[in-house]
Amino acid sequence: MASHQLLVTPPEALLKPLSVPSRLLLGPGPSNLAPRVLAAGGLQMIGHMHKEMYQIMDEIKQGIQYVFQTRNRLTLAISGSGHSALEAALFNLLEPGDSFLVGVNGIWGQRAAEIGERIGARTHQMIKDPGGHYTKQEVEEGLAQHKPVLLFLTQGESSSGVLQPLDGYGELCHRYQCLLLVDTVASLGGAPIHMDQQGIDILYSGSQKVLNAPPGTALISFSDKAKNKIYSRKTKPYSFYLDMKWLANFWGCDDKPRMYHHTTPVISLFSLRESLALIAEEGLENSWRRHRDVTAYLHGRLQGLGLQLFVKDPVLRIGLLGCNATRENVDRVIEALQEALQRCPRNKL
Amino acid sequence: MASHQLLVTPPEALLKPLSVPSRLLLGPGPSNLAPRVLAAGGLQMIGHMHKEMYQIMDEIKQGIQYVFQTRNRLTLAISGSGHSALEAALFNLLEPGDSFLVGVNGIWGQRAAEIGERIGARTHQMIKDPGGHYTKQEVEEGLAQHKPVLLFLTQGESSSGVLQPLDGYGELCHRYQCLLLVDTVASLGGAPIHMDQQGIDILYSGSQKVLNAPPGTALISFSDKAKNKIYSRKTKPYSFYLDMKWLANFWGCDDKPRMYHHTTPVISLFSLRESLALIAEEGLENSWRRHRDVTAYLHGRLQGLGLQLFVKDPVLRIGLLGCNATRENVDRVIEALQEALQRCPRNKL
Ligand SMILES: Cc1ncc(COP(=O)(O)O)c(C=O)c1O
Ligand SMILES: Cc1ncc(COP(=O)(O)O)c(C=O)c1O
Repeated sequence: MASHQLLVTPPEALLKPLSVPSRLLLGPGPSNLAPRVLAAGGLQMIGHMHKEMYQIMDEIKQGIQYVFQTRNRLTLAISGSGHSALEAALFNLLEPGDSFLVGVNGIWGQRAAEIGERIGARTHQMIKDPGGHYTKQEVEEGLAQHKPVLLFLTQGESSSGVLQPLDGYGELCHRYQCLLLVDTVASLGGAPIHMDQQGIDILYSGSQKVLNAPPGTALISFSDKAKNKIYSRKTKPYSFYLDMKWLANFWGCDDKPRMYHHTTPVISLFSLRESLALIAEEGLENSWRRHRDVTAYLHGRLQGLGLQLFVKDPVLRIGLLGCNATRENVDRVIEALQEALQRCPRNKL
Repeated sequence: MASHQLLVTPPEALLKPLSVPSRLLLGPGPSNLAPRVLAAGGLQMIGHMHKEMYQIMDEIKQGIQYVFQTRNRLTLAISGSGHSALEAALFNLLEPGDSFLVGVNGIWGQRAAEIGERIGARTHQMIKDPGGHYTKQEVEEGLAQHKPVLLFLTQGESSSGVLQPLDGYGELCHRYQCLLLVDTVASLGGAPIHMDQQGIDILYSGSQKVLNAPPGTALISFSDKAKNKIYSRKTKPYSFYLDMKWLANFWGCDDKPRMYHHTTPVISLFSLRESLALIAEEGLENSWRRHRDVTAYLHGRLQGLGLQLFVKDPVLRIGLLGCNATRENVDRVIEALQEALQRCPRNKL
């Protein structure tokens, strides 16, 4: 060490206490943490390779298998946000030159197409106005025309609120030797999904919406078909951090002894474990029903105010996610809207 | 929705309460959370795009500038572990075909080389036995021979414990039109670093070692030279999640209005903010001194036991990181070692 002086002094702002306001989060996500998830966030660290941590990871895997309704062994949590799960899917499934078909009816399809292009896939976009979904006929036309190895669809388009039907789409893809990748970041736990029965090959979701866990982890699962494509790649994925063969090993999804890959976000995994425990206790079907009922209640009350459900410019996106999906929260939103509508005319909202 | 039944039932293990043992973490990392960091982990969510969150992100940026000793504007936290910061550096700095020189004297150089190869850089390894570091003469030979655009060095090789000197290396690289990238995941806060004065172009570190924050965020900063290389790329980086132009915008490091990119790990950022506040309060130089003193104390006590500092096979890696760097913890380690040595002969430890 030479005789360097400190050139940068301790920043003033950091010497003041952390200040975090209390907020009810009723937008399209993130949502508030459920009390039990909140408590898990306050726990002390253990090692990412301690046996108790492996046990917690196993429980997370089982929880994901439950909420996805899958028996896939290759099921785990990614150490990043929803986007990192999308990248994990595309980086591992696609090789340069592969044909990739993307349903683009909002921002998430755009992002999938953008990533596909970055990694050199021949990316074909089926562009649709926000608010529309893809019929089986439209998908079949795309499959026949582009012969893709992978199709991307979003179940819950949080930018428009539309729900994409999924029954029969997996089977259709498989008839064309194509794998089906579905984004359920905004819909998981709020709308029914049956990964195995619907023949979905890769499914991913986030932690910070219906699950009411902090952002920073993402759920993902791969069918045997998807796994085979990954394990028979000719090239290595560009990312080591998201390399599914390494992650599969670290998450105990293969038969080899676990090897250090990266340091997983231990505390965020505690929280994710608790969020999955909560939905396992409530029961998936109850969670779906609660979200359906409270959404119907919201729609009714909005119509009572004379507001349409999808008004362009301005659009209000209201999210009722997990523990935030209550009639009381709907009433609070409606009251706030009523006040705003009284104060300023409708077209200036 | 069709008439699907639930095929996967709520997993037994998830219906039991979360159980996390209490552990003193004196390995090479992660370390225990400092009490104030622990408290931040138990806070409730706010939105990743709320103005209070932008304020916290600004404080984190200033905290990173302080611990790195840099005035670089392009300074932020990555939403992932130490490896994701390494990928962020390489994905953004290197284009296919670029020459990349890597000091490989342990696992971290191996990982950097592996990622360089995955993304199509012409990767040249300077291989050295663990425990060795690179002299300026060795580096200059590599620069002259391979004309790299980027050199990777690890300041603290946690797999061997060696500390790489850094004074003069930046200047040397710049004479050869090469940028200098340094890994300080294991050393930041424990050993002096002066990013600007040492002419380091890209510096990164983790949250879970000396900073005593949970794993899941990583610190990174780019010099103007590095920034110019990023902004004059001909190709887009393979990763959208780690695209520095997007991240720079979201972290307020450019002059454009902030746009949604991905959902940042809000709670982990609260914790990171607190860990940076703690080191700002203690003072960097005091933190360096405390780690130096307690390491000297450990070495003395180990020698008292007749153990050498770098015994191959078996190797014991002892980490005294941040709030864990106390004489009391050294005494506990020594006691445990003494007991183990009494119970079984040295060569069977
Ligand atoms: C449907 C959908 N997909 C993907 C994402 C991206 O997730 P993240 O912001 O966690 O990266 C979101 C986030 O809002 C989303 O709603
Ligand atoms: C020097 C060094 N670099 C990089 C890493 C990788 O960090 P992570 O495990 O957070 O991905 C580590 C982790 O131990 C490290 O010690």
